[in-house]
Formats: sequence, C-alpha cells, structure tokens
Amino acid sequence: MHEDEGMIARYNTISFLSDYGHRDEFVGVVRSVLHSISPGTAVIDVTHGIKPHDIRAGGLALARAAQYLCPGVVLAVVDPTVGAKRRGVAVEVGDGMSVLVGPDNGLLAPAVAMVGGATRAFDITNSPARLPSESTSFDDGRDLFAPVAAQLCEGVPIEELGTEINVGLLMPAVVPVSGLEGDVIVAEVLWIDRFGNAQLNIDPDDLPDTRNLRLDVNERTRPLERVAAFEQIAAGSIGLIVDSYGLPALCVDRGSAAAELGVIEGDSVRIMAGDATGGVSTAVTLGSRPAPGGQS
Amino acid sequence: MHEDEGMIARYNTISFLSDYGHRDEFVGVVRSVLHSISPGTAVIDVTHGIKPHDIRAGGLALARAAQYLCPGVVLAVVDPTVGAKRRGVAVEVGDGMSVLVGPDNGLLAPAVAMVGGATRAFDITNSPARLPSESTSFDDGRDLFAPVAAQLCEGVPIEELGTEINVGLLMPAVVPVSGLEGDVIVAEVLWIDRFGNAQLNIDPDDLPDTRNLRLDVNERTRPLERVAAFEQIAAGSIGLIVDSYGLPALCVDRGSAAAELGVIEGDSVRIMAGDATGGVSTAVTLGSRPAPGGQS
Amino acid sequence: MHEDEGMIARYNTISFLSDYGHRDEFVGVVRSVLHSISPGTAVIDVTHGIKPHDIRAGGLALARAAQYLCPGVVLAVVDPTVGAKRRGVAVEVGDGMSVLVGPDNGLLAPAVAMVGGATRAFDITNSPARLPSESTSFDDGRDLFAPVAAQLCEGVPIEELGTEINVGLLMPAVVPVSGLEGDVIVAEVLWIDRFGNAQLNIDPDDLPDTRNLRLDVNERTRPLERVAAFEQIAAGSIGLIVDSYGLPALCVDRGSAAAELGVIEGDSVRIMAGDATGGVSTAVTLGSRPAPGGQS
Repeated sequence: MHEDEGMIARYNTISFLSDYGHRDEFVGVVRSVLHSISPGTAVIDVTHGIKPHDIRAGGLALARAAQYLCPGVVLAVVDPTVGAKRRGVAVEVGDGMSVLVGPDNGLLAPAVAMVGGATRAFDITNSPARLPSESTSFDDGRDLFAPVAAQLCEGVPIEELGTEINVGLLMPAVVPVSGLEGDVIVAEVLWIDRFGNAQLNIDPDDLPDTRNLRLDVNERTRPLERVAAFEQIAAGSIGLIVDSYGLPALCVDRGSAAAELGVIEGDSVRIMAGDATGGVSTAVTLGSRPAPGGQS
Repeated sequence: MHEDEGMIARYNTISFLSDYGHRDEFVGVVRSVLHSISPGTAVIDVTHGIKPHDIRAGGLALARAAQYLCPGVVLAVVDPTVGAKRRGVAVEVGDGMSVLVGPDNGLLAPAVAMVGGATRAFDITNSPARLPSESTSFDDGRDLFAPVAAQLCEGVPIEELGTEINVGLLMPAVVPVSGLEGDVIVAEVLWIDRFGNAQLNIDPDDLPDTRNLRLDVNERTRPLERVAAFEQIAAGSIGLIVDSYGLPALCVDRGSAAAELGVIEGDSVRIMAGDATGGVSTAVTLGSRPAPGGQS
Repeated sequence: MHEDEGMIARYNTISFLSDYGHRDEFVGVVRSVLHSISPGTAVIDVTHGIKPHDIRAGGLALARAAQYLCPGVVLAVVDPTVGAKRRGVAVEVGDGMSVLVGPDNGLLAPAVAMVGGATRAFDITNSPARLPSESTSFDDGRDLFAPVAAQLCEGVPIEELGTEINVGLLMPAVVPVSGLEGDVIVAEVLWIDRFGNAQLNIDPDDLPDTRNLRLDVNERTRPLERVAAFEQIAAGSIGLIVDSYGLPALCVDRGSAAAELGVIEGDSVRIMAGDATGGVSTAVTLGSRPAPGGQS
C-alpha cells in the first residue's frame, strides 16, 4: 500500500510468476532470497508453469490474473535473454498501488495495460539491490528482480532502486488482434488451459448475433454453438462460451476442445455465422478428419 | 477453531485441494482472492495435481489427507459441471471444528465420512459472499468457494453464508467396495501414487492369513508376498504392503508396481491365498507377458 | 537462529525439499503436520520435483540451493529405503545456525559439505517426536522428519530429539569427480535444468585457456565455444557458459542443449582444446547424426 505525505511506501505482498517450473530449485531459491530480505512479506505464486521462454504466454497469464492480484509487488520472470541487452525494470501502476518488477521484454506490458497503464518506470539493471554473484553468468530472477521486489516491501523507495525512465520507452507486448475478412472473424488461440479450453482473442461484442456459428480450423469446417454453460454443449459438439475472463473460448463438455480440434496456442481460427440449424455443408463435414495435434 | 458462548467462530487455516494443476494461474488467482479477503489466514495446498474433473480421485486424496489436515476450513474444487445443476455447499464437521467448502458432487463426501460425518450443511450456491463476475460464465472456485472459505476465516458465521440443508441430502461419494468370490478377494486399484505403488480397497483384516498370496491382474497370475517393508520384496517380485494409510498396496522395491503390472486407477485385481511356496502353476507363469499399460 | 548463554535455540524457517512431486497429497500432508506443530514457522518449498528415489539429484539440488536458504531447519526427503536399515538424522551445521533433517543416505551430505561441514549429528530414528502410526508401514517424511523439524522450530533442543553420533559416521555423498586423460577432461552431466542446460562437474579453472573447445558426446565430436552469455552462442552451435552456480554448463541459445546433444543426467562427456577456428575434422562433422535422446 502506498501512503502519502512523507510516509514510507510499503508493500506487503509479492505475487510471483515465472517459467521456472517445479522440477528444479529455482522457485525455492528465489523465495528464500525474498524471505531473507523481507521475512514479513506474503509471497503468492501466480504460476511457474509458463512454457520456458514463452514471454507471450507469461504476459497473458499475468494479465488474466492481474485484476485478482493483491495490491503490492508483482515479480515476473520469463527471461530468454538474461544478461543480454534487455533492461530490468520496475513499473509503477495505479499511482503506486502496485509495482511490477521484471525484464523489459514485453512480459509485464499486458498486465500493466490491464490495470490502467504505467504511472512511472525505473531502469533497475544496475540497481544497488543486485546480489553479488561470483560467476560470470548470473540469474536475474534470483540476483536482481527478487532483491528489488523484497526491498520495495521493506520500504526502500523505488527511486533508490533504479533510474527513472520514460514509460513510453517500455517494451510493448505483441498481442495479436483479431480481424474481419468480410463476415468472417479471423482470430487466434490465445491460451489453452489445463482443461483444454481454447480462449480466443475476440471481443464478445464482435461475435455474430446468433446462437449458430461456424468454425474453420485445421482445414475443416464445423458447426459451433454459442452457449452459456458446458452442460449445454451436445456430446461430440464444440461450444463457444464467454469464459470467466470475459473472452470467448472453444469448449467441449467434460473434455478437451484443444485435443478435439487439434489446436495449440497461436493457431488461427475463423468464425462466422452459421445457418439456422447450425449445420454446415455435407461435403465439408464428411471430409477426412485431420489427426488431432493436441492431447488425444 | 470454534468457540462457544456467543464468541465468534474463527478458523485460521485453509487447506486447499483442486484439479487446477500448476500450468495455469488458477491456483495463484484463488490464493490471491483468499489473501485479499483474509490476509492473516495460513493457506496450505493439499494438492492441485488431481486429474482434471476426476471427482473420485480428488475425494480419495482429500480423505487420505483428512486426518492430518489442520482444523479449520477445507477448500476443495474438482468441478466438471461448474455452473450447472449441482449446488455449492459448506459442510461442518466435528461440531464446528472444521468446515469443508466446495461443489456438492461427492468430492467432499469421503473426507467428511473419514472425520465422523457432517454436523451441519449449508447450500452456498447463492451466497452473499459470491464475487461479482462480468461474464456470463464464471469460475466457482475463484468466485464462490474461495470467498466463502475466506469469510469463514474472517469470522463470518456460516449461517450468514448459506442456507442450512439436511445433511442427508448431500451427494454421497461412489467409493468401490471390494467383494468375495469364494475365497478370492475381488478388489480395485484405488490410487497409484507418484512412486507407482497401487493402493487397493481392501480391509487388511480381510486378507488371507498367510504370507504367500496370488494376484490375478491383466489376465496373468503372479505370486504375491505379504511383507512389512519394501526391502523385503525380492527383485522382480510383487509385494503387498499395508501402506502408511493402513490400506494394502501392491509394491515393488525401488520401482513402480503400476508399471510392472500394467495397471491404472480403477483397474480390477483378484487376490487369493497362494500355496506354501507362493508359487503358481507353471503354465500360467510361462504364459506370454502382457505389455505394461503404465509407465515403462 | 541459535542464541547462546542458556537461551533456547529457535529456528523460524523450514526449507523443504523432496521427491514427493505435486500429483499426490504428500507435500500437503507434511506441510499440515509442520503447521499443526509449529504454526508460526515459515515453510519454503525448495523443490519437490526430484525424480522419485534419486538421492544424487536431490543432494545436488539441495547443495545448489544451500547458499541461498534461510538459516533455520532444512527438511529433505528422498528415501528409497524408508523403514529399512538407514538411520534418520539431524545434522547441525554452522555451530547451530542451521539443522538438516532427513534420511542418512547421502542426501544431506553435499549441502552439509557446501556450508562447511557438520558441527554435530544426531540419530533421530527413534526420536520421541515420531508420530504414532497405526499401520505396520509408515512414511518417515510425515511421521518422523517433519515432526522433528517442527519441534526444532518450537525450541525443543536437538539433544532431546535424538542421540548424538559421530559426524564422521554420516553417510557420505557419491558425487562424481571429473578427471584428465592426457589433455582431455572427462566429465559428467551433473544436472539438466528445465531449460535444457547441462551442468558439468568441472572446476572452471581446469578448463583449457582458450575460447575454442571441442566436445565429445554420444560418439560425436562438435566444436564448443566458451562464451559469457547465451546470446553469444551462434544458431545451431553449442556454448559453454559458467552458470549462475559457478559451474560450466553446455548451452544453446533459446533452446535445450540436452535435447540437441541427446544427453541425460549422469552421461559422460569429454572436453578438450579445439583448433584456432574451433573447427573439427570434416569427416566427423559430416557423420550421421545420432537421434537426440532428450526432448525433441
């Protein structure tokens, strides 16, 4: 929480996201660094299951979580070019309500945008908080971002942890935008969750105003029904549900839409209004079925 | 902890189990919701590795853990029909020592039975604690069960969070019971743990009173030796050990019995007394070996 | 923290490592046991992703993490012979700054060595802290090591939790040492991390004093370039980087060296000085390429 009038700003929660996984000791080491610097601070793991080096997936996960995270510090590490030319940054949002700490590679940008944009930004690459490392290489999650996050929670002013930079110089995110080709929405699979639901980058308001849609994916056309709940999806059918984040997702009832459709994150799909019965031309639906590329 | 005489009941620990996995941000979002409502409450992750939508596996894991969980609130989410016809419930056990919060789909039932049955039950489907959601869909773990669990820890009486229902109306669990066919115990693999041990639904007292047993599984008969420790299992052999939960489990020494036997959870096995040497007929043991269905 | 002069030693952090994984409820049960005995103690998961029963991998992970862990209690459980002939031990290091609790099977040894060796050691196999278990089998992580760790944090003196033994009797670790055959360093892959970097058991000072090296692995010879950062590794090439733990690791830029080379932990590699251009004989580099044994 930020307090005005000469009082020291203090944050008491760190929300931590990374692509570290749970096989190695990376998460435990960073949490140990956080705890040793700021033992009274609560650390909440957002997720560490981001695919290695997948900045886009990490940025989208952080953005999805953003509205639910506790005010405080966000520590995010998906950092394929550790030690290379990218900066480390601390990005203040909400006039100091929260600070996001991590690499300036676009990872933080979707979440920053989601909460109203950056108030201030600081280059922390050469922060005095950086831990000394004996090796020529180093791990910025452990040695730089974690110490900066913990120092912020100990009340160290952000100005002492880095050098202010123009927020307009922060690396933007590359988030795909859906488009229109005539009456066809050309969209992309943003995210496939553990249950196999495939979230799309479509504003629900842009969907055709009809329950019966058609879906083109992997060179096959299928009927697609817009429904409000999983149980309304008929066995063997694909449903379109506005998910709990407010975005349309391709779903099947008690199964994986991603496996059924053979789609992965980043795949392109096309959605258009269907006919009254939701049917599609016989010639297409009888076409040979492509092998699923997801779980089967 | 519940306190009598007009004092407010307070719980200070939430034990959290789900099928959310660690790939997405679901666990982190729910923990953020819990922390923002009840920052002083300790949250202990029981496991989030339950197979997606596997109510039975989630219920059994919760029951195995039940006797070790701290008194307080249990938050359990394995919810294939989210938003459909099932209720959300808060189930009080031990005269208020603990409250289990989750979907009324049988998930909570084995743990509730394990600790002596429900004292009271409340329908929380339309709880005032439910978080508002802008989408037509929603996630009850995040929007309903977590807020109810956190409010209980903040001292909100359970009566204010739902409507009392008859405990006899709670959805029962479907837990398989082993049976007898003559002298043969017909049992089922309840659980295969990370190490490949295959726990069976057999009361140890029902086992034949002999060290030498026979195991029929996947159309093959093998000798099975009842032992007290892994090291007593000969190389290449299968042992039967009463595991740390008090149930018999098929084991091999430093290896995976599930892989060796080719069994998965839910598979049927038959156990009977063996001859004095534990041997089985030559014709059977020399039969062709089925391919293992588990890890290999 | 340990305090002198008759004051009770108290530890307020438990760092917890195991091979329990996250699929089952093992970690949650142990954390519940810790919390019920010592609710004020912070528990930090180092990792639970150690391969089942892989004592060496667990010991190396603990040693890598050791210098970053908070002073206090370390609880480590990789225990293939649970209940068999091995002892349970509590090993004091740093004159009481920390205590490592776990099986005496070599798991703790690399970390103990890393922090300067054992000050005292106690056999806790028959500790009064052991939880009663109704089954003939038991789980020492849950029933013995966790209660001992938690009691230490509650201020129970280590002398009351076990019987002092000679530190020289502790089971040593079997850590492979690299060797020299003429000018060739014969080394071993100690660890492959989530990102596919392959850490080697070589003292960086023993490397040839040249940027251009040669690598023999899986019957193929490749050029190997010693670099300071991932971005300096050319596409399709293998680099040698002194990693953030101070050991040389085989790396590729934004990819998995383990998959590229087809190596797993424990594999042998040979490193020698290359020629001025880092090239190797044409006959070898044009040889048929072995199928990668890692992820592909």
